[in-house]
Amino acid sequence: MENELHSSRWENFAVSDASLSDACEAGSRIHACIADLYPFCRSLTGNENRKTLAYLQKVLPELLVKEVPSGTDVFDWTVPPEWNVTEAWLEDPSGNRIVDFAKYNLQLVSYSEPVDAKLSLDELQLHLHSLEDQPDVIPYRSTYYNRTWGFCLPHRERVELPEGEYHAVIRSSLDESGSLTYGEWYKAGETDEEFLLSCYICHPSMANDSLSGVALLTELGRWLQTQSTRYSYRIVFVPETIGAIAWLANQSMENLVKIRHGLVATCCGDKGPFTYKRSRQGEAEIDRIVEHLLATKSNHETIVEDFFPIGSDERQYCSPGFNLPVGSLMRSRYHTFPQYHTSADNLDFVTAKALGESFAAYQQVIEIAESNETYITKVPYCEPQLGRRGLYPTTGGVNARTDTMQAMMWLLNLADGRHDLLAIAQRGGVDFSVLAAAAKSCRNNGLIELANGQFIERLS
Amino acid sequence: MENELHSSRWENFAVSDASLSDACEAGSRIHACIADLYPFCRSLTGNENRKTLAYLQKVLPELLVKEVPSGTDVFDWTVPPEWNVTEAWLEDPSGNRIVDFAKYNLQLVSYSEPVDAKLSLDELQLHLHSLEDQPDVIPYRSTYYNRTWGFCLPHRERVELPEGEYHAVIRSSLDESGSLTYGEWYKAGETDEEFLLSCYICHPSMANDSLSGVALLTELGRWLQTQSTRYSYRIVFVPETIGAIAWLANQSMENLVKIRHGLVATCCGDKGPFTYKRSRQGEAEIDRIVEHLLATKSNHETIVEDFFPIGSDERQYCSPGFNLPVGSLMRSRYHTFPQYHTSADNLDFVTAKALGESFAAYQQVIEIAESNETYITKVPYCEPQLGRRGLYPTTGGVNARTDTMQAMMWLLNLADGRHDLLAIAQRGGVDFSVLAAAAKSCRNNGLIELANGQFIERLS
Amino acid sequence: MENELHSSRWENFAVSDASLSDACEAGSRIHACIADLYPFCRSLTGNENRKTLAYLQKVLPELLVKEVPSGTDVFDWTVPPEWNVTEAWLEDPSGNRIVDFAKYNLQLVSYSEPVDAKLSLDELQLHLHSLEDQPDVIPYRSTYYNRTWGFCLPHRERVELPEGEYHAVIRSSLDESGSLTYGEWYKAGETDEEFLLSCYICHPSMANDSLSGVALLTELGRWLQTQSTRYSYRIVFVPETIGAIAWLANQSMENLVKIRHGLVATCCGDKGPFTYKRSRQGEAEIDRIVEHLLATKSNHETIVEDFFPIGSDERQYCSPGFNLPVGSLMRSRYHTFPQYHTSADNLDFVTAKALGESFAAYQQVIEIAESNETYITKVPYCEPQLGRRGLYPTTGGVNARTDTMQAMMWLLNLADGRHDLLAIAQRGGVDFSVLAAAAKSCRNNGLIELANGQFIERLS
Repeated sequence: MENELHSSRWENFAVSDASLSDACEAGSRIHACIADLYPFCRSLTGNENRKTLAYLQKVLPELLVKEVPSGTDVFDWTVPPEWNVTEAWLEDPSGNRIVDFAKYNLQLVSYSEPVDAKLSLDELQLHLHSLEDQPDVIPYRSTYYNRTWGFCLPHRERVELPEGEYHAVIRSSLDESGSLTYGEWYKAGETDEEFLLSCYICHPSMANDSLSGVALLTELGRWLQTQSTRYSYRIVFVPETIGAIAWLANQSMENLVKIRHGLVATCCGDKGPFTYKRSRQGEAEIDRIVEHLLATKSNHETIVEDFFPIGSDERQYCSPGFNLPVGSLMRSRYHTFPQYHTSADNLDFVTAKALGESFAAYQQVIEIAESNETYITKVPYCEPQLGRRGLYPTTGGVNARTDTMQAMMWLLNLADGRHDLLAIAQRGGVDFSVLAAAAKSCRNNGLIELANGQFIERLS
Repeated sequence: MENELHSSRWENFAVSDASLSDACEAGSRIHACIADLYPFCRSLTGNENRKTLAYLQKVLPELLVKEVPSGTDVFDWTVPPEWNVTEAWLEDPSGNRIVDFAKYNLQLVSYSEPVDAKLSLDELQLHLHSLEDQPDVIPYRSTYYNRTWGFCLPHRERVELPEGEYHAVIRSSLDESGSLTYGEWYKAGETDEEFLLSCYICHPSMANDSLSGVALLTELGRWLQTQSTRYSYRIVFVPETIGAIAWLANQSMENLVKIRHGLVATCCGDKGPFTYKRSRQGEAEIDRIVEHLLATKSNHETIVEDFFPIGSDERQYCSPGFNLPVGSLMRSRYHTFPQYHTSADNLDFVTAKALGESFAAYQQVIEIAESNETYITKVPYCEPQLGRRGLYPTTGGVNARTDTMQAMMWLLNLADGRHDLLAIAQRGGVDFSVLAAAAKSCRNNGLIELANGQFIERLS
Repeated sequence: MENELHSSRWENFAVSDASLSDACEAGSRIHACIADLYPFCRSLTGNENRKTLAYLQKVLPELLVKEVPSGTDVFDWTVPPEWNVTEAWLEDPSGNRIVDFAKYNLQLVSYSEPVDAKLSLDELQLHLHSLEDQPDVIPYRSTYYNRTWGFCLPHRERVELPEGEYHAVIRSSLDESGSLTYGEWYKAGETDEEFLLSCYICHPSMANDSLSGVALLTELGRWLQTQSTRYSYRIVFVPETIGAIAWLANQSMENLVKIRHGLVATCCGDKGPFTYKRSRQGEAEIDRIVEHLLATKSNHETIVEDFFPIGSDERQYCSPGFNLPVGSLMRSRYHTFPQYHTSADNLDFVTAKALGESFAAYQQVIEIAESNETYITKVPYCEPQLGRRGLYPTTGGVNARTDTMQAMMWLLNLADGRHDLLAIAQRGGVDFSVLAAAAKSCRNNGLIELANGQFIERLS
């Protein structure tokens, strides 16, 4: 696997030679993390969620685990009772155990209520779920807010079930005095302006949907632990929807307005081209950063979608009262690949290489966000003389200008307090990292300074 | 005809099965109305205009007939003398009556002054009008503000006129003590905000140009009489240009600012695809409504044109001092079809089916305008829990979302006081009527309320 | 040449038959001027620059010649010492004079310091410049701010230089008590709002780059001398970069804000299609004028480029503190043709016809700028009755409307104080000169007046 990782071209995302090895190692670690977490029977609540977070604490020792009691009102919602399962199985008329939760948790409908019943095949059918058009896979189903129970199985098996008496047993608990569990990791930067990273921990054995985001953000946290940053970073590991709502309900408005950028991480492990779903704001800085990155770093067609109110937790972060600048960076988006919400979204569907590419993309989003300052020139009238500062080719008349020169000329012309570096990079068609380096050099030479809200007025 | 109407697909405009029968009947009635009004010799003024309005009063009893005396100053213009004709004919050297107004009013140039003269063919030619490139049809000509007289005839006949003495007789009157006549129909709605519908009654036997608009708006008035509406509706039947100017001169500015939407109806009866000419504002709500409707309901390519200051009475409504939100919804626009302003714009050129489609389009414009409210959510933070209100599928994980669900999610996310329903329908790609129904449902559930100028501030 | 000029179609720029002869004569005079100035060894400073300006004074007697002493600080720069050359040559080991400044000034690197040295071929190579990929031409090189010396020659000759002792002699002076010379021509118009025209005089024998702009602006000045204009016109003849900076340093901010339009003229003499480089503002009136003109008057594809901070003196005029509305109208832009900055940019590369076309384009830019007023209607409510003012066809119903009628209708509808004539011409698709004539006619008839900042409010 390592060989394959290193030898093949990274067509989906360009990584410098210097970074390739790190990204490959990250991809491998993310895949290993997914594999470790895959068997846990996560749901909205329960002990397997706590086990998942405990596992992540080995990588992120600062990860805090928080509990919100069942019955707590969070905005328009109420935290549900805590669900745990000790045993669940289905036996056919001959006593064969044809479904066993202990072997494959996906076969139990999540949040199934307890049952111990003998049923005819007709009665049982009301509690079975399968996919007629994908007869070999098991669908993933949940019944969070409707008390019932059920089993999932391949349609091919379902149609061959014999008549007779079936025995269905689910030993589950729905505990009103339990709680919902989420994880939150925070690393302070130079400022208290925040970059929010969010993933969901409520899915059982789903590798790309849910777990790829959990494992990727964990690896990103590992890297951020070693970085000194301008922004503060917060990673939240929440059950989807109710968990994000509960987390939001726990924040003060004063804290939420510090969120400058945000991404929901999911579906990051398949080989498909990158997909970016914009924040509801649509032209937030995070939107501009990700779109610029994908446009300049991916050799494949990438997909950029406007925000839509169906999807993952960006639905909550981007509800109209919050309207936070939170987008979602994925490979193949949920609902668009046939493996989605089936047993085929498994460990074979996600690859270390794809995960490494996605990791590198998240990393570069952060690197751009960190350097994307707005500068104002200290030499606004005519060009500064770069030559006497050692910044200009000394023999005139040469056609070729280096990339750095181009970047510097664009920077000095557009450093008017109205263009951030990203806007300059896009306007000038120059590489962001070359531009950021030029900005550092010009700042050291006293040619520009941080704008801090100042700008140059137009003569009139 | 009825059979043809019902059996063929309505390709130009989608009508629900429930509405098809009504639209077909409307189309047939509109065509019959055109046929009845076709023989009258309408002009800027005169008794035939009064007869036309009297005919319409049978359908619209509340239609008021108003007179503006000749010589009245209306803005930059003066109402002309009233024109009436008792007799007009032209005899060739052999005494054959080759043109007779009594048989076909189009052959007399409108507003011809009286004459009783014997002329050589050369002298007569100065008073004849024909179309060299359409030798079989009779052109329509007028001489409203230049005192002269003339006859119109097919070019094929004109070139064969023999030499000799012709006798031209026109017994017309141009009465300085007469008046200009227009009709005005008003139906109060819940508010005094107005929807203005305008057509022109100054053309003699022209079926598509002029009469199709007159008859369609009359039928629309018949329907509006049975509706309870939010807007008040005003239909004006005016001679083109001077009549619209006289009508505007009779309004107070206070009343004109109540006009929220307006359409000039003409050329609604041919089989061509729909054409919409935008208001001068260009992005007024009426423009957005009609464009959305045509984009979603017509199977044919439709034409949307920016406002231009040559055309019909939108020229006056959209003069820069008024700049009212008045567009024009047509089939083939004037100046674009060869029958325009000729004897070929006759009863065969307009069809009951095309008129029915156009009627349905006007009706749906009104239906959208009536429901196009702007809402603000009462649950701005995170999504409301639709499940406990019976508005959400209870088994999670199902890929398919119903259209209603989609519409509701879009509504709740964008009900921020800044998006009207039309903007939400377009942004979400959801059907307007489904969205309007979802809005009603959400409003009944207390999830949204009318915005009335409130909006949700962006966090910052 | 005259025959060729007159007979062939002017495909790059449409000129009326009436103007063609003038434009042809202008083209011939511009070409002759380039030929006369071609042999002078211009640079940033020196006597040959003064000779160049003295030559131009024969055409433009009001041209002022200004001197800025070496060592003067101008913004971030310092005026360099004055450079003059009396003699420069290179002899090969056999004593053959293989390079002689007296014969071809381009072979001496501009601003070479004095030298009298005998060198081996290896030592000499460090001071030679040639183009490997264009082995037959001599490159143009300068060393303004780095003290060294050098010679330029065809690569084909360079590779055949024999081993042995070479003799290099440059009798040049770099005089700290000298000065930089520039020319400035000003003609007052009705207002003190200015149109700035700028070209650069620092290149030695370069025909298209540099000299075509110098000669074209001189010819434009000759024409402007005969015109009575609304704007005041200023033509500056400066050494590139340092000269433009020195000129700017000599202006008060109060004067600079009077600049309403500006163009840098260069590369105007080759046969390529027109190129317009926008001002940094991007949508300044000058940008709109030139783009409209090229879109409507050129039969060839033209190129419009956004501003970029590499190029000629627009870099200084458009530095962020000034941000003046200065673009650059060229044929083939610098850096895009292989002759650029080589001996192939010579008198054969520029043609009288191309120069005549470019002259006509500059002339029409000025003509549009002069007439591009913003009007407000005095008849805002409904259309004015054009007929009684003799401005409307008196027989109604005729399909055809003359171009003038179209222009007048557009003008009266959009004369709301928010649209200048150019905006109306573009919106209505009418010819600017027809529209300008219609505006004159409507103004004479009292229908419109200059807006002077007034505009018509939207009813609401």
